[in-house]
Amino acid sequence: MIRVGTGVDVHAFDHGAPLWLAGLEWPGEPGLSGHSDGDAVCHAIVDALLSAAGLGDIGSMVGVDEPGAAGAASTGFVTTALARLAEHGWRPVNVSVQIVGQRPKLSPRRDEAQDLLTRVVGAPVSLGATTTDHLGFTGRGEGIAAVATALIERDAGDGPRSAPLDPDVR
Amino acid sequence: MIRVGTGVDVHAFDHGAPLWLAGLEWPGEPGLSGHSDGDAVCHAIVDALLSAAGLGDIGSMVGVDEPGAAGAASTGFVTTALARLAEHGWRPVNVSVQIVGQRPKLSPRRDEAQDLLTRVVGAPVSLGATTTDHLGFTGRGEGIAAVATALIERDAGDGPRSAPLDPDVR
Amino acid sequence: MIRVGTGVDVHAFDHGAPLWLAGLEWPGEPGLSGHSDGDAVCHAIVDALLSAAGLGDIGSMVGVDEPGAAGAASTGFVTTALARLAEHGWRPVNVSVQIVGQRPKLSPRRDEAQDLLTRVVGAPVSLGATTTDHLGFTGRGEGIAAVATALIERDAGDGPRSAPLDPDVR
Repeated sequence: MIRVGTGVDVHAFDHGAPLWLAGLEWPGEPGLSGHSDGDAVCHAIVDALLSAAGLGDIGSMVGVDEPGAAGAASTGFVTTALARLAEHGWRPVNVSVQIVGQRPKLSPRRDEAQDLLTRVVGAPVSLGATTTDHLGFTGRGEGIAAVATALIERDAGDGPRSAPLDPDVR
Repeated sequence: MIRVGTGVDVHAFDHGAPLWLAGLEWPGEPGLSGHSDGDAVCHAIVDALLSAAGLGDIGSMVGVDEPGAAGAASTGFVTTALARLAEHGWRPVNVSVQIVGQRPKLSPRRDEAQDLLTRVVGAPVSLGATTTDHLGFTGRGEGIAAVATALIERDAGDGPRSAPLDPDVR
Repeated sequence: MIRVGTGVDVHAFDHGAPLWLAGLEWPGEPGLSGHSDGDAVCHAIVDALLSAAGLGDIGSMVGVDEPGAAGAASTGFVTTALARLAEHGWRPVNVSVQIVGQRPKLSPRRDEAQDLLTRVVGAPVSLGATTTDHLGFTGRGEGIAAVATALIERDAGDGPRSAPLDPDVR
């Protein structure tokens, strides 16, 4: 049994904060605003995984105003999301993320970021990056967007798949 | 046999119209412009389903200027799209939708919307929502975007799969 | 073994250039800027395919400043990406692309574009198109965005799947 999920996340640059993106710190780059560390890649991954399993989104998993969320490492949110999936018998197959923004330059650290996220997710995570030809808010350097797609699977016998009130099918 | 499809839809707010989104009416919220009811979630689902099956898009399915489209409930477009898929032997596996916008707040009505759309589609539909940190047109409250990804399947024996002129592979 | 990949690409209009989009030339339409022919559809397909296989992105495959990239036909990039996938045992299952922009009008040439790209990819490629209700940079006619999702597969025995340093799982 296989399902697909989509996640999108956007954060504005905060030039007074350190940048955390794709689970890595990027010294010398402007940071991202938002509760937690603003890691749009991890947030999009969380949304894609939760959505694939029909388990809500990052906002319903992590209270936005929760004190614990302030400055939290977003890789922890990925781990929490995977635990929720596992409770319902779901395992990640792979996750693909496209980063949309003028900076930072991903390629020199792509392998490092992919290795880290692949370890966190326990399945292949791949990262691409593109600019928007200076168009729109990402093109003006106001923020970063990330689009994630996840495949997940579970054995047909796992989870209360066909019960009418199964929360998985909501 | 399995295939994936992507759909994106955007509608501008129309403060004089009622809001229909994800198949629900949202009293007190600004509506969305556009032919039909402007339900960007349903429209993205239709495009994802049709694209997965190689059957065009919502614009080719519903004439934009067709009188019948004015104010039409977009859940009906989802039903029509599924009928087209069924003619070619395709069944939905699941659909995941990310809503991008500052409002309305999805979480209080997520279950209700997911239940409705899951019944319409006949397979799990999951909904996530995110803001864009006040960036771009969604961040300025000018409209709503929805990004949908669908998985569909059919039995290997169904449909004229490998014929050179098979419309499914166009 | 199956995997999903996501690609997004954006190019700005360049009114002095011919338009190449989805592998076709569109006489009388404003072109797209950028290295190569600016074909955002082909570039999104390349990113989706490479990302599904964990093989980087178009920027790492084609040097941006490479002399050979100037004015190159982007269908050639798709062919190159598929060759990289094939080296690792991956075959495309299908690719779905949503074009986001006010123009050109896709529907009169959808079949022609889908046929061409399906031949290039060797698996079904489907194309949808949507406007953004005149919102954002695509709505203002500044450029075109394309969002692609790809499914790929390989036989379980192919490729060094479970080796810890397998580049495919990065």
